[in-house]
Amino acid sequence: MRAQIISQVVKIFTLGGMSTVLSFMIAPLVLKFLLKNKIYKQIRQDPDAPIFTAIHEKKGGTPTMGGMIFWLVTFFIAFTVLILSFIFGGIWNFFNFVTREQTILILGSMMLAALIGIVDDIFNIYRIGPKGGGLPMKVRLILHTLIASIGAWWFYVKLEWDILYVPFVGNVHLGLWYIPFFIFIIVGTAFAMNETDGLDGLAGGVSFMALIPYIAIAFLLGRFDLASLLAVVMGGVLAFLWYNIHPAKFFMGDTGSMTLGILFGFLAMYTNTALFLPLFLFIPFFEALSVIIQMFSKKFLKRKTFLSTPIHHTFEAIGWPETNVTMRFWLMQGMAMIFGLLIYLLSVLKL
Amino acid sequence: MRAQIISQVVKIFTLGGMSTVLSFMIAPLVLKFLLKNKIYKQIRQDPDAPIFTAIHEKKGGTPTMGGMIFWLVTFFIAFTVLILSFIFGGIWNFFNFVTREQTILILGSMMLAALIGIVDDIFNIYRIGPKGGGLPMKVRLILHTLIASIGAWWFYVKLEWDILYVPFVGNVHLGLWYIPFFIFIIVGTAFAMNETDGLDGLAGGVSFMALIPYIAIAFLLGRFDLASLLAVVMGGVLAFLWYNIHPAKFFMGDTGSMTLGILFGFLAMYTNTALFLPLFLFIPFFEALSVIIQMFSKKFLKRKTFLSTPIHHTFEAIGWPETNVTMRFWLMQGMAMIFGLLIYLLSVLKL
Repeated sequence: MRAQIISQVVKIFTLGGMSTVLSFMIAPLVLKFLLKNKIYKQIRQDPDAPIFTAIHEKKGGTPTMGGMIFWLVTFFIAFTVLILSFIFGGIWNFFNFVTREQTILILGSMMLAALIGIVDDIFNIYRIGPKGGGLPMKVRLILHTLIASIGAWWFYVKLEWDILYVPFVGNVHLGLWYIPFFIFIIVGTAFAMNETDGLDGLAGGVSFMALIPYIAIAFLLGRFDLASLLAVVMGGVLAFLWYNIHPAKFFMGDTGSMTLGILFGFLAMYTNTALFLPLFLFIPFFEALSVIIQMFSKKFLKRKTFLSTPIHHTFEAIGWPETNVTMRFWLMQGMAMIFGLLIYLLSVLKL
Repeated sequence: MRAQIISQVVKIFTLGGMSTVLSFMIAPLVLKFLLKNKIYKQIRQDPDAPIFTAIHEKKGGTPTMGGMIFWLVTFFIAFTVLILSFIFGGIWNFFNFVTREQTILILGSMMLAALIGIVDDIFNIYRIGPKGGGLPMKVRLILHTLIASIGAWWFYVKLEWDILYVPFVGNVHLGLWYIPFFIFIIVGTAFAMNETDGLDGLAGGVSFMALIPYIAIAFLLGRFDLASLLAVVMGGVLAFLWYNIHPAKFFMGDTGSMTLGILFGFLAMYTNTALFLPLFLFIPFFEALSVIIQMFSKKFLKRKTFLSTPIHHTFEAIGWPETNVTMRFWLMQGMAMIFGLLIYLLSVLKL
């Protein structure tokens, strides 16, 4: 037991360490590639959001799609160890973390999300589409729903899951409601991560922290391959974040935020921790909520509730420097994440 | 067992929450007090450190001694629950965390450190002493050694401890060597925290993170009063940090860095985790090491090894913006802290 646990920790750290080194090696190359090909972010021109436009004009001309670092590295390492394990077996079987039971579905959905994100980014860069470019929100929502539906089908039909864990209560069977709930979670996390991605270092830092409880939970559930995959993603996010903090050398782009959003959604469903999302993804939850409240407020009350949404813009508007917003949001995310993990442990562990 | 653990978590969170609320309430008052009394940091004028002086001239005129927030709140809450428990007993006995076995010595040494720090800060503010003010390094080292000696005496003579935990090996008896080792650790952490305190949000952020493994370890050792004390300190550090991130509204001052440094030293000795300090206090360790290497290098090789020390100045000198250094150091501290906690768990838990 002890030997197995230690060997799995070694596996997770080796893969995570490899990913970190590799990511720091390719990050400058990705940056060079983005600059050379003029893959710059086009800032949304929206007459409905004057505060947003005023604050963010200076951000035009920064490369985007930096998020490709973490999925490139993830897919590369996953593919490499898989191939090596096929050919040589032995130690490579041990390091391989691409398994049907634990990671294939998540890797597949990340891949889909990365692709859709790229399309969205390219639309933005070449100013295709409304409001300065990018896929219209409706199209994006439909695509998210599509990915989510595949997942829902897999979980409900193939795996015959319909349970939701309620802390301190236990598993509740949702029956057919599991499917809309699943779709809601995936679309919600993708949307929330997208909204969070608006300040240097924000979405990256938040995701970096949110990966920690999921690695811990995957480990506790004995899903070591999943924990390994997440450690690999984390290494990539770290290298991305290194260059993404203010003043950002590049942004993650939709290919980054979509991949991370979808990843967290699937993680929540796969580890049966959906009700912990408001804590594990505290800042994205808070950001998405602010956007939704603002939308309803504008529509039904004919006035704004917040100065500007997603909510980080409100703090910028009242005069906090950008790095202050980011660092304070990091602090809140950190506290909420620890709090969430603690509640999870108290509720799940047999003490 | 389960009920006891949950009740202790509730206690720790209640006290930590109270401390957070209280600290956020008094932080603006402390700021107002410091500004009104012109308690400004005097920047060291050192012809031997031209790069330091050039980078940091802009920092003159920022209030210092903001670190009093976390010790004020800690002592206030500790004293209040102690008094209430004396008078009313009952629930207050439960919330009281000032106990002879677990926290008195640490609270006492924090109090001493806070006082010495205040003297040092006042010397600095009124430009008493060499190089633009503050106690000379020698005097400070003597005072640290004094506090450390009291602690060493208490542990070795009164508690009859002479053990050092070596990860994956077990306890090693140090015999009389325990005393110099104890002093070395305390003086070292105080020195290291002092050197770390040189950028907005750096020492505060690092300490905030380093408290996490110690709360976890205190909890695992069943020292719930100690965990409560640390949660109270953490609330204070959070509120301090909120205002201390770039552009800093105030600095912690020596009264802050000394208190935290001494606290971590005693924590390391009291939880028998001294060998984990390079991970739990990764950044301070790294900073102190850079200073020592530089000193030896100047003395014996007659040249500098680093552009400027403590090492964060080197990164500033090569062009990283101040917030970049802080955030990247936070990231490294976070990784090292998690890594350290994991090694601790693997080594200590009976799996």
